[in-house]
Amino acid sequence: MPQMAESATKGRLLTHPKTEEIRIENVLHALSDPIRLRIVRDLERGHEDMACMAFGLPVSKSTSTHHFRVLRESGIIRQQYHGTSRVSQLRRDDLDSLFPGLLDAVLHAPNLTP
Amino acid sequence: MPQMAESATKGRLLTHPKTEEIRIENVLHALSDPIRLRIVRDLERGHEDMACMAFGLPVSKSTSTHHFRVLRESGIIRQQYHGTSRVSQLRRDDLDSLFPGLLDAVLHAPNLTP
Repeated sequence: MPQMAESATKGRLLTHPKTEEIRIENVLHALSDPIRLRIVRDLERGHEDMACMAFGLPVSKSTSTHHFRVLRESGIIRQQYHGTSRVSQLRRDDLDSLFPGLLDAVLHAPNLTP
Repeated sequence: MPQMAESATKGRLLTHPKTEEIRIENVLHALSDPIRLRIVRDLERGHEDMACMAFGLPVSKSTSTHHFRVLRESGIIRQQYHGTSRVSQLRRDDLDSLFPGLLDAVLHAPNLTP
């Protein structure tokens, strides 16, 4: 029932900071959690446009939603509704232009939680 | 009374993670606070071996001590006693070898709190 799904999501605004509003403190905080780092790593590995639930995270649905919101509100990911699911995308271009080298340094860090 | 100061600090162990124990999550968390970012920026600008109090941070002494401890325990700075004062040093070599580009990306970020 795609039409129903569409209308069910109407009015649900997902707020995103503009590129120039992205702050390093918020980005660092968002990246400082192992679960959120794992999401970013998965998105970087090409799991673009995946629904939150498809990441198979070892946390509850509400915790997962929280982590994705922190990533979105800090400017690390973009989320949009596909039907009733939110799909996520890494804002790689924005992050690379604002903080060159940051994402690569983080994604290639040793001792990352698997 | 340098001798007294020395003995007053005996037994006060300042723990530091070994290089291989430094974890990216802890480093990112430590850097995600504006006051701690300012301390790191001051140390980077050549304020090496400065006592905590000399940074003139707009926070209480106990809050300042807390921020320096977070930086030390995450592996970002080294602290040692000079008399009764703790002086701090950025662990630049350790950070650059573990997370190449991270510190530069953070220190050159736009919109940093002054």
